[in-house]
Amino acid sequence: SRSINLAVIPGDGIGPEVVAQGLKVLRAVLPQDVKLETKEFDFGAKRYHATGETLTDADVDALKQHEAILLGAIGDPSVPSGVLERGFLLKLRFLFDHHVNLRPSRLLPGVATPLAGQPEIDFVVVREGTEGPYTGNGGTIRKGTPHEVATEVSVNTAFGVERVVRDAFARAQARPRKKLTLVHKNNVLAYAGHLWTDVFNRVAEEFPEVTTDYIHVDAATIYLVTDPARFDVIVTDNLFGDIITDLAAAVSGGIGVAASGNINPSREFPSMFEPVHGSAPDIAGQGKADPTATVLSVALLLRHLGYDAEAARIEDAVSADLGERGETPRTTDEIGDALAGRVAG
Amino acid sequence: SRSINLAVIPGDGIGPEVVAQGLKVLRAVLPQDVKLETKEFDFGAKRYHATGETLTDADVDALKQHEAILLGAIGDPSVPSGVLERGFLLKLRFLFDHHVNLRPSRLLPGVATPLAGQPEIDFVVVREGTEGPYTGNGGTIRKGTPHEVATEVSVNTAFGVERVVRDAFARAQARPRKKLTLVHKNNVLAYAGHLWTDVFNRVAEEFPEVTTDYIHVDAATIYLVTDPARFDVIVTDNLFGDIITDLAAAVSGGIGVAASGNINPSREFPSMFEPVHGSAPDIAGQGKADPTATVLSVALLLRHLGYDAEAARIEDAVSADLGERGETPRTTDEIGDALAGRVAG
Ligand SMILES: CC(C)[C@H](C(=O)O)[C@@H](O)C(=O)O
Ligand SMILES: CC(C)[C@H](C(=O)O)[C@@H](O)C(=O)O
Repeated sequence: SRSINLAVIPGDGIGPEVVAQGLKVLRAVLPQDVKLETKEFDFGAKRYHATGETLTDADVDALKQHEAILLGAIGDPSVPSGVLERGFLLKLRFLFDHHVNLRPSRLLPGVATPLAGQPEIDFVVVREGTEGPYTGNGGTIRKGTPHEVATEVSVNTAFGVERVVRDAFARAQARPRKKLTLVHKNNVLAYAGHLWTDVFNRVAEEFPEVTTDYIHVDAATIYLVTDPARFDVIVTDNLFGDIITDLAAAVSGGIGVAASGNINPSREFPSMFEPVHGSAPDIAGQGKADPTATVLSVALLLRHLGYDAEAARIEDAVSADLGERGETPRTTDEIGDALAGRVAG
Repeated sequence: SRSINLAVIPGDGIGPEVVAQGLKVLRAVLPQDVKLETKEFDFGAKRYHATGETLTDADVDALKQHEAILLGAIGDPSVPSGVLERGFLLKLRFLFDHHVNLRPSRLLPGVATPLAGQPEIDFVVVREGTEGPYTGNGGTIRKGTPHEVATEVSVNTAFGVERVVRDAFARAQARPRKKLTLVHKNNVLAYAGHLWTDVFNRVAEEFPEVTTDYIHVDAATIYLVTDPARFDVIVTDNLFGDIITDLAAAVSGGIGVAASGNINPSREFPSMFEPVHGSAPDIAGQGKADPTATVLSVALLLRHLGYDAEAARIEDAVSADLGERGETPRTTDEIGDALAGRVAG
């Protein structure tokens, strides 16, 4: 009989509320013969304040015992900016080599968008997750003086770029439109830009059916609001991916419905699935948070583990639910119940 | 009697067409007693193909003889990506120390925006222009091999950050809302982020009337489409500024109306004014280009040289013209004539 051994990190703010709904829907969608084992971890602001720890070696070892990780949100204004981001979120992405940061955007019928004319939006961003300006490389001299110099080094390797570009080509190949867009800024960031462009063009030869194009990151933000339908799959660097996926989420229904996967395709280490939104402390504990992004992250998790039919059932349930959402706001729990009801087969 | 000694760089693609209208409006708005002297320069793709030159030492010396530069657009698909950008545009910004890259965004009544509900948009981005990831610092080893490593170094100095932050505070102070937002990614780019945040907070003490806040660049793209009215003045780094000003242009009427100034406030070297759009070779020579962005760049130029009343006349003319634009497209020349007619006093 089959089983899923899941690490659960509720985290801060609205994290615990949305994760509870994600688990509810996961339990409802799984066939009887699949045994779900979950173990909860207490990472986040509370633990940091109590112990000063963000993620210890023992924590990492414990997480490694699981097949996948479901994360709510990590972050709180009481913790200095960057401590939990770099001490936990990015640390995990690096340690578990989550090089494919997968962020689908789909504007479903009936869902509100800030764009006029309800454009068609259905694309996936494959964001590199372990390199670029995110490596923490850099430094400061003469800190706090009028002569301070601070540097940040974007590190890009052929190895790291090629594996994520190949992953993106394979995803484009598997989609009806078979189109892949490279987003970079190769006219200015010429060293990294050359590497990305060169690798992209070489890997393209292995995927003759995939149509390719290139656009600068600044122009990409224009297309995301004027012609998002032009995109099918986008592959891009860690920082550009961070920026354009927030914009992509905003135009395709908001961060309340934006899911993401931090994926290690080799499965050497567990992949981590999380909503794109943060911990939203201002609405925490009020039952106001929309759990949809977490539920859609559960679908990405299931697909990663090979439960394609169950993933599709969740996505269909979300589509149906979003299409029927009226003006009356529902609580976090009510939305979770509705989705769990729809997927229960 | 007064005079303006202007270097004019028509450039590539639609550059010459839009610059001609910019000059037309400039001539129409200037009082009789102001003598306008212009000298045209042939930089761009044609010169590059003919001579291999993008900007020689002699060119730089010649440009230095002028009080300001009006640029149309530089760039052509026939030139490898980056050659003209780094060999001309960025080279000038660095040589002439254009550290204040000024990009106003205003959605005028009646102007089309991709956003639903015609939101209020009236803000200015002050983009740093001489540091950050734009310095060309970095390198490549093992180029073209599976072991290639390419780096890009973002260089940030207290000197460079402070002068642009102070400029932005002064601009915020002079506006009715007196609000300044720092956009960065200080939770990830911690060295540069700390410098920016620290300098920003220190300079803020000198401007007690200015309300300040900080948002991450990814979140900034969300606000630009969901709540652009929250912005008054934004100050940000070179790369983040590049990205968010294209998005800002897109939501506030499109790049057809987005102006920019590459400003050296000390006036030690001439400042350069240019539309945010590129050379658009696909529509060049057809009289289809909208010269409005260039005309608004002329207004920024005039304000920089102290002709505030004339700058305001141009901006009012553009507002009036945009408000009355119907469905019938006009030629580049017709729009230029209409604006010149309106400003002629
Ligand atoms: C919280 C932060 C470190 C993170 C990032 O920049 O990657 C977030 O913005 C995201 O997109 O997942
Ligand atoms: C052409 C390019 C070098 C330039 C930049 O990146 O600054 C452009 O995008 C701009 O915004 O002026």
